[in-house]
Amino acid sequence: MTKLFIGVDGGGTKTLTVVIDEQGNELGRHHSGGSNHHSVGEELAREAIFEGIKETVKKAGGSLSDVARVCLGISGIDRPEDQVLVGTWMNDILPSVTYDVSNDAVIALASGTMGKLYGCVIISGTGCIAYGFNRQGKSTRSAGWGPLLGDEGAGYQVGFDMLKAIVSAKDETRPKTLMTDKVLTQLCMKSEDELITWAYDPKNQGWQKFAQLAPIATECALAGDVAAQQVLDKNVQAMVEYIQSVFVKLGLDKESESVPLVLAGGNIERECLYSNQLKASIAKILPNAKPVFPSCDSGKGAALLALEKYKSASTAEK
Amino acid sequence: MTKLFIGVDGGGTKTLTVVIDEQGNELGRHHSGGSNHHSVGEELAREAIFEGIKETVKKAGGSLSDVARVCLGISGIDRPEDQVLVGTWMNDILPSVTYDVSNDAVIALASGTMGKLYGCVIISGTGCIAYGFNRQGKSTRSAGWGPLLGDEGAGYQVGFDMLKAIVSAKDETRPKTLMTDKVLTQLCMKSEDELITWAYDPKNQGWQKFAQLAPIATECALAGDVAAQQVLDKNVQAMVEYIQSVFVKLGLDKESESVPLVLAGGNIERECLYSNQLKASIAKILPNAKPVFPSCDSGKGAALLALEKYKSASTAEK
Repeated sequence: MTKLFIGVDGGGTKTLTVVIDEQGNELGRHHSGGSNHHSVGEELAREAIFEGIKETVKKAGGSLSDVARVCLGISGIDRPEDQVLVGTWMNDILPSVTYDVSNDAVIALASGTMGKLYGCVIISGTGCIAYGFNRQGKSTRSAGWGPLLGDEGAGYQVGFDMLKAIVSAKDETRPKTLMTDKVLTQLCMKSEDELITWAYDPKNQGWQKFAQLAPIATECALAGDVAAQQVLDKNVQAMVEYIQSVFVKLGLDKESESVPLVLAGGNIERECLYSNQLKASIAKILPNAKPVFPSCDSGKGAALLALEKYKSASTAEK
Repeated sequence: MTKLFIGVDGGGTKTLTVVIDEQGNELGRHHSGGSNHHSVGEELAREAIFEGIKETVKKAGGSLSDVARVCLGISGIDRPEDQVLVGTWMNDILPSVTYDVSNDAVIALASGTMGKLYGCVIISGTGCIAYGFNRQGKSTRSAGWGPLLGDEGAGYQVGFDMLKAIVSAKDETRPKTLMTDKVLTQLCMKSEDELITWAYDPKNQGWQKFAQLAPIATECALAGDVAAQQVLDKNVQAMVEYIQSVFVKLGLDKESESVPLVLAGGNIERECLYSNQLKASIAKILPNAKPVFPSCDSGKGAALLALEKYKSASTAEK
């Protein structure tokens, strides 16, 4: 039986587990429930990970003893005590297997670099973070502070900026914008005043609802709306700054060869206005940054990372 | 016995009631519990208003039959059904007395104009709103949308902008700022990372905690901190725009005589950097705006408003 390498992309509501062989071929995948123990509790989180590992190994036609290495990227696993907890789970199911626990950004980087931890990733989904590694293995980040402390470029921040443009147009402190009608229609509202009840509704909290407005900004900018374009410009500019700071802090801007810059997250998908603008801005400021889109999802990225780490360790042993 | 005029400044946690005579002299005041029924419930809100009216009339040495007019400014009383509710309370305690129910901004304006509803008020407290009346009695507002939809100039927005400057300095996307040490000290934190737990703490929600950081921005700007000055500039600029839009919408900018601009709320008190900057910016853009600070609190402003309305009605009858 071939050696198996397992990647886990764990979130608050769902977990994707992917198994690959030593050549990087995918042999199976499995979706289970949330594995962020802050969201679902320890019992369910542990169970989601166990289920993913067992089911993918089964789909690969192997057994747990074939697993050579595991890489887990789990949201909300930031503190040392979180890592210790995941360690106890891994010790229960695969006591003799080396594993790594990373944050989401690390496996998103791996999804664009075929498992190599080198370069920078920018993720613009509901939130936004830039994360990178240099050749010496040093890592750093910018942003990732959440909606109240910043994180421009994030879906919710684009949403906030759109809503500000809409209420400012209503106040007549800013020009009218196409976004008003589009947003009110999407939210089934008759007037801007209803936005207040919606925004502060204690029964509908969370930042996702703001992030869900973001596609309207792109749509309106493409239709020539100045206010929408300003929202995109401001958020693209912020992302450029995050990326630049990661490059500078790691010395990546001084590399003579091109450095991978992975563009990940729902807001900067291939060929959208937002990602095109981001690429154009980056080209001016960081000419050696090579924007790439993920070649796989983060679950497979995690599995490729496990494979790469296994190869490096084997080489080091020789 | 002189006629009595009663003003009520009602909030979520406390209510101030003030009684004056026909010459505008204060005869008594009383503090009772919250009278925003959304916060404390109908029973307690009604009781807080009854208590305030009864106690101030007693302090004035009069009786309920001496009350000539009442003006209530109560937070959270925006919808028609809220106004109807307050009407049923007033009918219970003072069935034959004319009363007005306004929002907080109206009685804040009155606190700077000796009860006349003419001109504009800008309030920068925890939130921010601009509100005005022209000579024809037409009113309008700008801002007042709350922390997620805008309201720059508000205490919480100054706080958000400060925190963004601090985390951006940590990310090295913005220069270092004096605000970092001052804010971390005030919040008893060792590093910026602790801001995340503090900002999103489900046990310590609410926007007041962000607004409480605002005085540090002024302090740091006075010490020459560029980032702090930028925070103030941005928020002052927004307030100028709100004021300008109220002036333009009401035609106040076209008045040949000076128009009162009342500067109210804890962030723009007399002779502070923030209000001085605001006054300087307004002088350039709206030369006929005459900035004034409230000459009394909003409770007395409400009482003066009741007196002015009584006088106008009496004049109209003649």
